[in-house]
Amino acid sequence: MVQQNSTKIVLVVLDGLGGLPLRGKTELEAADTPNLDALARESACGLHLPVGWGITPGSGPGHLGLFGYDPVEYQIGRGVLEALGLGLEITRRDVAVRCNYATVRDGVVIDRRAGRIPTEQSRRITEKLGREIKRIDHADLVFAPGMEHRFALLMRFSEPLDPAAGMIGDTDPQKEGMPPLSPEPLSESARNVADVAERVIKKIGEVLKAEEKANSILMRGFSSMPHIPTFQASFGLNALAIATYPMYRGLARLVGMSTPALEGGVEEEIAFLKQRYHEHDFFFLHVKKIDSYGEDGNFEGKAARIAEFDRLLPEIVSLRPDVLVITGDHSTPALMKGHSWHPVPLIMKSPYVLGGVCSSFSERECLKGELGVFPAVHILPLALANAGRLKKFGA
Amino acid sequence: MVQQNSTKIVLVVLDGLGGLPLRGKTELEAADTPNLDALARESACGLHLPVGWGITPGSGPGHLGLFGYDPVEYQIGRGVLEALGLGLEITRRDVAVRCNYATVRDGVVIDRRAGRIPTEQSRRITEKLGREIKRIDHADLVFAPGMEHRFALLMRFSEPLDPAAGMIGDTDPQKEGMPPLSPEPLSESARNVADVAERVIKKIGEVLKAEEKANSILMRGFSSMPHIPTFQASFGLNALAIATYPMYRGLARLVGMSTPALEGGVEEEIAFLKQRYHEHDFFFLHVKKIDSYGEDGNFEGKAARIAEFDRLLPEIVSLRPDVLVITGDHSTPALMKGHSWHPVPLIMKSPYVLGGVCSSFSERECLKGELGVFPAVHILPLALANAGRLKKFGA
Repeated sequence: MVQQNSTKIVLVVLDGLGGLPLRGKTELEAADTPNLDALARESACGLHLPVGWGITPGSGPGHLGLFGYDPVEYQIGRGVLEALGLGLEITRRDVAVRCNYATVRDGVVIDRRAGRIPTEQSRRITEKLGREIKRIDHADLVFAPGMEHRFALLMRFSEPLDPAAGMIGDTDPQKEGMPPLSPEPLSESARNVADVAERVIKKIGEVLKAEEKANSILMRGFSSMPHIPTFQASFGLNALAIATYPMYRGLARLVGMSTPALEGGVEEEIAFLKQRYHEHDFFFLHVKKIDSYGEDGNFEGKAARIAEFDRLLPEIVSLRPDVLVITGDHSTPALMKGHSWHPVPLIMKSPYVLGGVCSSFSERECLKGELGVFPAVHILPLALANAGRLKKFGA
Repeated sequence: MVQQNSTKIVLVVLDGLGGLPLRGKTELEAADTPNLDALARESACGLHLPVGWGITPGSGPGHLGLFGYDPVEYQIGRGVLEALGLGLEITRRDVAVRCNYATVRDGVVIDRRAGRIPTEQSRRITEKLGREIKRIDHADLVFAPGMEHRFALLMRFSEPLDPAAGMIGDTDPQKEGMPPLSPEPLSESARNVADVAERVIKKIGEVLKAEEKANSILMRGFSSMPHIPTFQASFGLNALAIATYPMYRGLARLVGMSTPALEGGVEEEIAFLKQRYHEHDFFFLHVKKIDSYGEDGNFEGKAARIAEFDRLLPEIVSLRPDVLVITGDHSTPALMKGHSWHPVPLIMKSPYVLGGVCSSFSERECLKGELGVFPAVHILPLALANAGRLKKFGA
């Protein structure tokens, strides 16, 4: 039902936007947001449910829903998400794993996190592994250093893998004093991958045997790339992801958006939006810091980051996109210091809205809005409709 | 779960009711509607989504949803809708086609609309075809003249057809300078129908060969009648359709409503409702002109037609139906000069509502209503419940 035209759609994701009240006001209500408020007054507003009632989404499902994909149908494994977050490019030939350095003595795990070794030391060890173990059997290995005791590993095979090839049990026994588990294949097509993983663990043990703490590893979240139809094929949009954090570029890459590397903050992101505005017709612009302050339980900090975005908003509005959507991928109330299940406020600006319903942009005002409370997966079709990019259904 | 009683349900469809603001007010907000406003104050109100978020429905899916059928599950082909609109009765033995007269020279289409020949001339030619080509192979042919270069054709076979028998590609090449395409069967059961269509085209070419412009035809939207359970079987209602436009009677006939022919305007429709009020328990009353003005982009005209209906509303209310539903089949904002995806305001009057929630009947007031924003397919079950026609679910 998709049709082409020359319209432009901008989707701004204020990560973790939704909140809960402290002294009567949510972060969004407490923040100074004259520009968002003015936009809300002339736009269609509502709240979206990222996955469903009571479901707290991770960043993966939160974004897939906003991109128009059912996050229950298309699930992203933890290994894949970790690898994306560390900037790795994942293909259909890869199985990704989250790894911990661990201390193992006499076949028993005595520290599941290798004493939380410093990031610098961890990086040095991971780079050594990358130099010394490039290939096991017919799989190339790609190591990516992470924070403290963490790193990600890709096992890259010569052929595209079956979607079930990553169904392998964790090797982390979850308690100290137990031996590490063997990577157990949970599907027929995972058998070969599990064999490779077993040999990788053995080889890493040999390379690290002289290390005092990080002398072994534990593997978790084995996963292969989900088979998601591309954004272009699904919605006919040539999309650009504008995100300074690798994980969000990685999520956009999973659905085939262009994802050039970018450094800096929101100002650099908006400058990049302007620079590339004529080259694409859909723009996903990701604002990270709002969520980070929510995760830290810093109510004032989160409100300040929202206000900071508000001051930059006129620069986006001045591009006059045909459809401008501003929302979050999930709520992160400072009160809860983490993601939550609460519906997320949303503004959709286009020439084809009622408007005049909400007096400001907040959780409580959006409840009155013309879009109601609705599943995130409908946001993209609605944006397409407002952009004149959907044909009539039936005669 | 359906049970019988002696209640009466009236569903008034104000075609294309929903709108968008011009100078701050929608058509419905701008219209003078004291009677609708009073009814809204004492009724359950809300907005329905005809098909889904962002989906602009044609008249077919718009009405099927209001009749309680999932419009995605039951799709009505373009040929069928065209034939219904021209007043043809369609059976399960028929394949319906929308046809254009075209000018073809040396095997190439030089005008896809035969110079938009006048309706009178087109009617004369179509009647001639009806006289001269009554049967091809084992299929009877039924021709119905339309406007300008358009007409509808039924190929009526001796036995009921498989639902896939109408899956045949258009013969319209979409551009001038190309030869017409052959009717290509897209399913096994369409093969025989496509053969007949090919012979129909050839025979029509022979009959029209002396015509200067309309010397050939192009066929589009091949379709057979959808297999929809009847309204009586689904909902236990003996239904009467009151509509002056053939297409809406045709849609009601698809689900087995009684559909006597009727001429005139809304006053004649209401008189007919009164006259037949004791013979049925469900009444679908269709008001066309509101949509027509919306399609023309005539904001004032659309508002005037709404106000005109408002003045007649007391005559319907005075019948004291147990449940009175007033809504549209889709929105047709004058601003957009066409159907749109926007939710449609709805009033449901019964003794079993909260009421006292909305101060008038409008898109924005209905947002506050006790029914919220919900899929059209739930309207009929809700009306049945309000009429005491649904049993308890479970013990």
